Amino acid sequence: MSSTQAPSPPGPLTTPRDYPASRKIYVEGRLPGVRVGMREITLSPTRRADGSEEANAPVVVYDTSGPYTDPAVEIDLRKGLPPLRHPWIVGRGDVAEVDEPTVSGRAATPEATRFPGHRRPLRALPGANVSQMHYARRGIITPEMEFVAIRENQRAEQLAEATGDRARHHPGDPRGAAVPKVITPELVRDEIARGRAIIPANINHPELEPVILGRNFRVKINANIGNSALSSSIEEEVEKLCWSIYWGADTVMDLSTGADIHETREWILRNSPVPIGTVPIYQALERVGGVAEELTWPIFRDTLIEQAEQGVDYFTIHAGVRLAHVPLTAKRVAGIVSRGGSIMAKWCLAHHQESFLYTRFAEICEIMQAYDVAFSLGDGLRPGAITDANDAAQFAELDTLGELTRIAWDHDVQTMIEGPGHVPMHLIAENMERQLASCHEAPFYTLGPLTTDIAPGYDHITSAIGAAQIGWYGCAMLCYVTPKEHLGLPDREDVRRGVVAYRIAAHAADLAKGIPGAQVRDNALSAARFEFRWEDQFNLGLDPDRARSYHDETLPAEGAKSAHFCSMCGPKFCAMRITEEVREYAASRGVEEGEALAAGLADKAAEFRETGAEVYLRE
Amino acid sequence: MSSTQAPSPPGPLTTPRDYPASRKIYVEGRLPGVRVGMREITLSPTRRADGSEEANAPVVVYDTSGPYTDPAVEIDLRKGLPPLRHPWIVGRGDVAEVDEPTVSGRAATPEATRFPGHRRPLRALPGANVSQMHYARRGIITPEMEFVAIRENQRAEQLAEATGDRARHHPGDPRGAAVPKVITPELVRDEIARGRAIIPANINHPELEPVILGRNFRVKINANIGNSALSSSIEEEVEKLCWSIYWGADTVMDLSTGADIHETREWILRNSPVPIGTVPIYQALERVGGVAEELTWPIFRDTLIEQAEQGVDYFTIHAGVRLAHVPLTAKRVAGIVSRGGSIMAKWCLAHHQESFLYTRFAEICEIMQAYDVAFSLGDGLRPGAITDANDAAQFAELDTLGELTRIAWDHDVQTMIEGPGHVPMHLIAENMERQLASCHEAPFYTLGPLTTDIAPGYDHITSAIGAAQIGWYGCAMLCYVTPKEHLGLPDREDVRRGVVAYRIAAHAADLAKGIPGAQVRDNALSAARFEFRWEDQFNLGLDPDRARSYHDETLPAEGAKSAHFCSMCGPKFCAMRITEEVREYAASRGVEEGEALAAGLADKAAEFRETGAEVYLRE
Repeated sequence: MSSTQAPSPPGPLTTPRDYPASRKIYVEGRLPGVRVGMREITLSPTRRADGSEEANAPVVVYDTSGPYTDPAVEIDLRKGLPPLRHPWIVGRGDVAEVDEPTVSGRAATPEATRFPGHRRPLRALPGANVSQMHYARRGIITPEMEFVAIRENQRAEQLAEATGDRARHHPGDPRGAAVPKVITPELVRDEIARGRAIIPANINHPELEPVILGRNFRVKINANIGNSALSSSIEEEVEKLCWSIYWGADTVMDLSTGADIHETREWILRNSPVPIGTVPIYQALERVGGVAEELTWPIFRDTLIEQAEQGVDYFTIHAGVRLAHVPLTAKRVAGIVSRGGSIMAKWCLAHHQESFLYTRFAEICEIMQAYDVAFSLGDGLRPGAITDANDAAQFAELDTLGELTRIAWDHDVQTMIEGPGHVPMHLIAENMERQLASCHEAPFYTLGPLTTDIAPGYDHITSAIGAAQIGWYGCAMLCYVTPKEHLGLPDREDVRRGVVAYRIAAHAADLAKGIPGAQVRDNALSAARFEFRWEDQFNLGLDPDRARSYHDETLPAEGAKSAHFCSMCGPKFCAMRITEEVREYAASRGVEEGEALAAGLADKAAEFRETGAEVYLRE
Repeated sequence: MSSTQAPSPPGPLTTPRDYPASRKIYVEGRLPGVRVGMREITLSPTRRADGSEEANAPVVVYDTSGPYTDPAVEIDLRKGLPPLRHPWIVGRGDVAEVDEPTVSGRAATPEATRFPGHRRPLRALPGANVSQMHYARRGIITPEMEFVAIRENQRAEQLAEATGDRARHHPGDPRGAAVPKVITPELVRDEIARGRAIIPANINHPELEPVILGRNFRVKINANIGNSALSSSIEEEVEKLCWSIYWGADTVMDLSTGADIHETREWILRNSPVPIGTVPIYQALERVGGVAEELTWPIFRDTLIEQAEQGVDYFTIHAGVRLAHVPLTAKRVAGIVSRGGSIMAKWCLAHHQESFLYTRFAEICEIMQAYDVAFSLGDGLRPGAITDANDAAQFAELDTLGELTRIAWDHDVQTMIEGPGHVPMHLIAENMERQLASCHEAPFYTLGPLTTDIAPGYDHITSAIGAAQIGWYGCAMLCYVTPKEHLGLPDREDVRRGVVAYRIAAHAADLAKGIPGAQVRDNALSAARFEFRWEDQFNLGLDPDRARSYHDETLPAEGAKSAHFCSMCGPKFCAMRITEEVREYAASRGVEEGEALAAGLADKAAEFRETGAEVYLRE
């Protein structure tokens, strides 16, 4: 849709309100109102060869979908989600309502398309700092901190007591991270105070279910949505938001650049249970008609305040693009590929000054602390081609981001650092190591990285390869890349593919780091697979619908879902069935140790044949 | 299609005979008949701001598609491909024709469906050994060796002399591999003699274009095709073969298990320019009605000879499944997931003996050397779940495979080793390291590995993550996994997705290893992207059709393909365009060093504005 047409407002919800065989459960905290939603997947029983059944305990998994998958919550996109955090925020006694938004871009959008509700923005009382970091440094455990502790923990304390196959877990290789066994609110507070983790949670986004980003926690993923001047409507963007979190996005960035930028963001924020990030320079550039060199500090400042009052949880700010860095990009194959980075580079060259983002950084911090907006310090000079990876421009900016992190922390402003980009595998570790060193362990947030340039149309895969690795190495959040990267804006199906690819990368990283409990889902799914509990295998997967439909393409009958074989091998060649026999035979010997068993097995062939060797193979 | 229906024979070719903007070129060797096909991609010129044009040299890329993309070759699936290697094979004077195939499963398939042509099988003269390893150890450089040297090299010697952006290359991190700068036939011979590389090339598969697999060469990929008792026809399997190599499969395994197993293989071999691998135990099991314990050495031996006489280039043989290993799997979550492994495990338990694959291994070697079939020593006990990774069963078998490698090498039989499977990222390196140590650097050939179990429907991605890593660490060939893994047999589209995902993984590994010239394609594609040469960007990609169609979804007009922006950002926010300005400005200053440039730029703002700052931003 062209931006010259009137944008259509969201209608009824078009994304699902449940997951197969799942229900929403809540784990209550000690602080008032702390109630953490999780998803419980019900499994079918194991059927033994003798016809008996054994129940399988449900599996609880991390849930990003918020109230949308709680049947008890009435969903109306025109009203927005319940303001879960409102009592916590006002209860701290350090905020006041702002009568009218200081700045607003509402009027650009026709009234019929605007978000109908209106809530007065909150702002810190004069002199107050409402950031989670500020509270943490004063020793306060906020409801947000307890919420993320429970959420991150996913009942790992119960798992520690569990036994059996499901609790089996490889020791991880956290590569220097201090992955805790059980996550307590105190630990969360300490990590936030130290700057090693953040909870992006603007006081004007009370609909948010808090999430923590940091090296010592589960790896998170971000989905980018947003229209451009050339395509997409508000309705589509809200749909992409809901769709992203249904598949598992932990945060969403609204990268819209069109005329309806303010109102698109309003609809998104009011309907988002996950943190929303933006790149405010995009809107500022709209205000100056797209002429980068006409950007000024007052215009940018007003944009920050406008978005902070709407409730944006983190701002990408490219304050690390310094004048002296720009010429370092001149010999690159792909130059500057960050939109924000290129805008600021142009501004620096045009004015031959350091940008206002850099020179006014302390003033920006004062705005951030008044609403608790977190910094996502942008990597404006990230490499956009394999050959440009890890070059002088990139690392010069990274060092500047480290300096700025210190300034942000001096203001108790939560901060994370953005990273590349396009990086061949063997240069990924250096990115993580230098980020940890230069930026004092502030959380890292990378785009991929893409490990080759040669697969347009498949960059969700080129980048999932790199994302999984940097996640393992310590990256806190992975920004997804969709199959449309470099080619066009993602549609609904692209969003799904991108989010699932990144859930895979993040989970693979969690397994490698040894996040407690991460392997439970793998173990449960593999057990279901081994026992031919097809429905459980589908339902435990990241995309049950796709798994089910792929299975049904070759074996569509309902009966096939309880069949003890599948279309890949057919009944005769099914390795799983044969394994069952091996196991039953081993069990029947009552011998625990494999080697001992083998030693004791000589000459038992006839007996094995009698004990039903053929029962499973031919049916 | 059920196997009870008559299988339909292949009709006309249904896969493309060309790639966009590409032509087939041949590089001639010194030995007679050595003529190596490559694909040359033509690029459009770079258009400068002043209206002038600069030609871009074509890019030559590795080509697995064989004669199918040579318009000079007439293709008729019923006749098969030209027997390129026939003169080389008979020219060595060490083979004789066999009057009638020793064993044949032809009769199982109705005559109308059988492959029409017939060529008498070749076999080594009594006492002769026709393996490439045998020749190499006698100091002979065969045409096959020169062929792969030229092919592997991809004109790297020319590249070494090239200059400019396209020749830029990160030094790799080969992690112990000895990656040569230029590949010579002598080097190939030495690697084959040493056992560190193989050229699977049965004397009865003269249609083959030789390919080398080894740690010090480009990482290769394999595509599995083949029907099961439940689905697929001969026609579909031949189509999948052609489709696999069109997208870039270096070898193809025919894993068929139905009644038409012999004839399916015949059609595949006669039409395949890439090595074909099989798992002979599948056909042997058909011969005994699917009852594993009734398998015998004579039945298996006959199957080997039958397939060797058809031209199969490598056999997966699960000779490492020893009786004592089987009980080590009893406590696994997923038991034994290899079909061949489970068959042999059952046989071992039923007979309480070591299998005939193990006890008759020297006799098997004698068959292999008479046709030059390579071993792919099967990992029958590979882990099928994350929790089972790197366990005692897996590594016990690996040690046995190392012992068998020595025996194979004593017979001058080319050998590679199969590997897992399901492995979390932090345990992948151990797989590679133990394989190198236990198996004396024989080439490693892994399935994935899948880095998590929780994404059925997306296992091409869970496994591409692991495959890229193990490829970097030294694995010679990556067996693809399609989105249908664990759910059903892949169809044509799944094959495409699987092959492209694995070409990505292999190429990412080549970049990380520092394979000379590997980065040329990335550099050329990124330059095209930066210069908005959209058609070049599509054509240089692994899947031009998909890239083009994704682009056209948002900007379908032909004009958009020369537009200096795309649908992602629209004209105002295009980072690439802004970078052009930075570059032109830098160039206009005539300063080489970025830092020096920046230092000299102070106070030049007005001048920058005059030199066209707005030319690209607003149009």
